[in-house]
Amino acid sequence: MLRDLVLKNRSYRRFHQDQPVSEETLRELVDLGRLSASGSNLQPLKYVLACTPEVNARIFPYLAWAGYLKDWGGPAEGERPMAYVVILGDTTIRADAGVDHGIAAQSILLGATERGLGGCMIGAIKRDGLARELELPDHLEILLVIALGVPAETVVLEEIGADGDIQYYRDDESVHHVPKRSLGKVIVSVL
Amino acid sequence: MLRDLVLKNRSYRRFHQDQPVSEETLRELVDLGRLSASGSNLQPLKYVLACTPEVNARIFPYLAWAGYLKDWGGPAEGERPMAYVVILGDTTIRADAGVDHGIAAQSILLGATERGLGGCMIGAIKRDGLARELELPDHLEILLVIALGVPAETVVLEEIGADGDIQYYRDDESVHHVPKRSLGKVIVSVL
Repeated sequence: MLRDLVLKNRSYRRFHQDQPVSEETLRELVDLGRLSASGSNLQPLKYVLACTPEVNARIFPYLAWAGYLKDWGGPAEGERPMAYVVILGDTTIRADAGVDHGIAAQSILLGATERGLGGCMIGAIKRDGLARELELPDHLEILLVIALGVPAETVVLEEIGADGDIQYYRDDESVHHVPKRSLGKVIVSVL
Repeated sequence: MLRDLVLKNRSYRRFHQDQPVSEETLRELVDLGRLSASGSNLQPLKYVLACTPEVNARIFPYLAWAGYLKDWGGPAEGERPMAYVVILGDTTIRADAGVDHGIAAQSILLGATERGLGGCMIGAIKRDGLARELELPDHLEILLVIALGVPAETVVLEEIGADGDIQYYRDDESVHHVPKRSLGKVIVSVL
């Protein structure tokens, strides 16, 4: 059931850094993005793939992790992502990719989950620096980075408390808790 | 396999208007959206659901269909959607929903496909008119409309020809053809 996959597909930020992700897997995942809907079918998305320790280490410094965990600067050496999919918008095709990268990223992450992987869509990117590091031409704009690997943390969904706080948090056992609005709160009306 | 679901999940614009979609199904689909990733976990998305002929008929005039099919004004009576999910951004939570609605819409449509339904994400919306029709408060901004039903058309993926044209088209048998960029064309590099 897709619901099981959606539930299992949490945002993971710590990984088994000894368990690689193959280029072939990345290609299969990007193919899921490619086959997903695109506004006016323009298909402005392009992709850069990385799955070697050397390249992963070059990408990592340009990413910001888990804004609500103030005491955590991101995954330590040994629990870092083993692959990245950098989603780009080709501005010669369309100036603004709309939500195409959200659609594609969801297909990619659901596909990763099905393969026993997990990951995180990262929007907090030092874009200028990463574009230089990857030697991207000006017409390819960095939209999202998807970090991937075999998850090495437990993520649990929670109901939002009376205070309405949506900030995720880690407990004493390093379990990551994510408060979600209830279905009743997000459905405004059934007409 | 998710890949089968992604392939089956085409943008459908003609439906069996005699085959209803239940409110319960819509709630299950929206729940898939609710359980999907949200930037900074802010969860600004809200939803309005419609699945009665009366309400569907009120929503339909505010939507634009298949821009590349110049001779087709959208689905005729008898092949119109049997349900809508209107995705809203609650601007009191976040001014800009980012790509949250793309992520959620993909989960919703994959869930619909799994249930033998199909649909189309519609961004070409007469937003002011629809907001008035639905009596939406100012802080709920219309982001996307997902039209749903049991598909009554065949959609086929095609390779893009030498001219690079990405415009979808219908053949003499009313089969809908959608040219997609190849995997080789969307992967810029493997580093």
